[in-house]
Amino acid sequence: MPNARAQELVEGLQKTIFEFMREHKVTHDEYRVATDLLAETIQAGEQSLLYDIFFEAEVTDIANTGRDGSPEAIEGPFYLPGAPELEAPFMLTQRADEKGDVLLFMGRVTDTAGRPLADAEIDLWHADADGRYSNIDPSVPAWNLRGRFRTDAEGRYKVRTIVPQSYEIPKCGPTGRVLDALGRHCFRPAHLHVKIRHPDVGEMTSQIYFKGGRYLESDSANAVRDGLIAELIRHERDEDLAAHNLDKPYFDVTYNFVLPSGVLAVARAVA
Amino acid sequence: MPNARAQELVEGLQKTIFEFMREHKVTHDEYRVATDLLAETIQAGEQSLLYDIFFEAEVTDIANTGRDGSPEAIEGPFYLPGAPELEAPFMLTQRADEKGDVLLFMGRVTDTAGRPLADAEIDLWHADADGRYSNIDPSVPAWNLRGRFRTDAEGRYKVRTIVPQSYEIPKCGPTGRVLDALGRHCFRPAHLHVKIRHPDVGEMTSQIYFKGGRYLESDSANAVRDGLIAELIRHERDEDLAAHNLDKPYFDVTYNFVLPSGVLAVARAVA
Repeated sequence: MPNARAQELVEGLQKTIFEFMREHKVTHDEYRVATDLLAETIQAGEQSLLYDIFFEAEVTDIANTGRDGSPEAIEGPFYLPGAPELEAPFMLTQRADEKGDVLLFMGRVTDTAGRPLADAEIDLWHADADGRYSNIDPSVPAWNLRGRFRTDAEGRYKVRTIVPQSYEIPKCGPTGRVLDALGRHCFRPAHLHVKIRHPDVGEMTSQIYFKGGRYLESDSANAVRDGLIAELIRHERDEDLAAHNLDKPYFDVTYNFVLPSGVLAVARAVA
Repeated sequence: MPNARAQELVEGLQKTIFEFMREHKVTHDEYRVATDLLAETIQAGEQSLLYDIFFEAEVTDIANTGRDGSPEAIEGPFYLPGAPELEAPFMLTQRADEKGDVLLFMGRVTDTAGRPLADAEIDLWHADADGRYSNIDPSVPAWNLRGRFRTDAEGRYKVRTIVPQSYEIPKCGPTGRVLDALGRHCFRPAHLHVKIRHPDVGEMTSQIYFKGGRYLESDSANAVRDGLIAELIRHERDEDLAAHNLDKPYFDVTYNFVLPSGVLAVARAVA
């Protein structure tokens, strides 16, 4: 079935890339290196990593332009629907001896009028202390550091996890080879991936970085934006540790999400 | 290791696609449909089919511009190196009961000065009478209708195979779905794929179509060019059948290849 938007985008992109190829006199060998590399990223299990590194932040900037609510961020290639639903008090699924410092991630979810959103679903996923994602790297247990939980009646959330480290794109993989050919490093600054959903308002995708972290200014995906950086605060006082039943220092990060009003409104307008 | 040409192409293409995405207000949902589809083409075994349908003919036109020799044509996604070397008299590897009319494919290979090229290697591959390629479709025996053979002292070649039919891109696959969304059919006109190699001159890739064939004007890959169309001639006289030891009508196609001088000269200039 012909689809006018698909025609606009596919035929328009084809024309644009034709002009680019003519201008740069792309050879057949170069073309084949590119198509082989695109196939290899999938065969190597990198999913959309190569595309997400080069293009997703721009798509997200386009979506954020002129929109209310917290800024959205790139989803990245490793999101998976259907993560475990956690029981309160919320702790992200992890190994008994999970490496890394304890992190309490908390805040509020409101709508753009400032009203708290109770029972909003937060879907959180991030790399472990070795920069590996579960369900992608077979050495990590399934659904490790992935989970869904909900805000309370005041729109508040709090979940315990570990502080992720800078994520390094596999250097030997096809995406790593492209970054190397460009003279760029393979690191992304440490980050938490989040999706927030509320049936009355909509869904958003975000990513939280830590102030002062490495690679914030040289992210290989060029996806860090001001509104996405939160403070990672270290706590080591005995009474704080006791309050959380911990025997070693921990960190917390507070981030308040304002769910944008646009997406669901647009979806309803065309329905 | 930084590579100036990779930087020019990757960063230039990124900038070009950013502008395209902003102009067309590409949404994140559309972006993800695209990256999922690109992954699905590989998982479905379509190799570079989607790219080759949309982009390869333009790359080939760029290469042909201002160049001598026969026109080059798209390689397509199903070329494989290492096809069987045939023994004279040459017959392309096929099943004992291979469907389709007998085809004698013959002609000469010369350089651009008209000198015959003896001992040039011709690497021929094409779909069977059901539009399937060996080593891609598991229902076809390995290396069926793929093979390499050589020109004689006068640069002549002659090989027996079968007449291929129009090739239909799998309709249910991701590439077929894109063509459907564009309101286009999935057919390519019947064709033979050829690579010609000579150690003193170089290598070229061609594709031979048949005059009067279906889909020449609406090829889904838009890759038919005037210089690539040859006449498919039917022979049914008793003496012709007897001369080839055949008991039913057969076809022949004559195509003379002029190996372009450019590629190897360029390769040598930079070596």
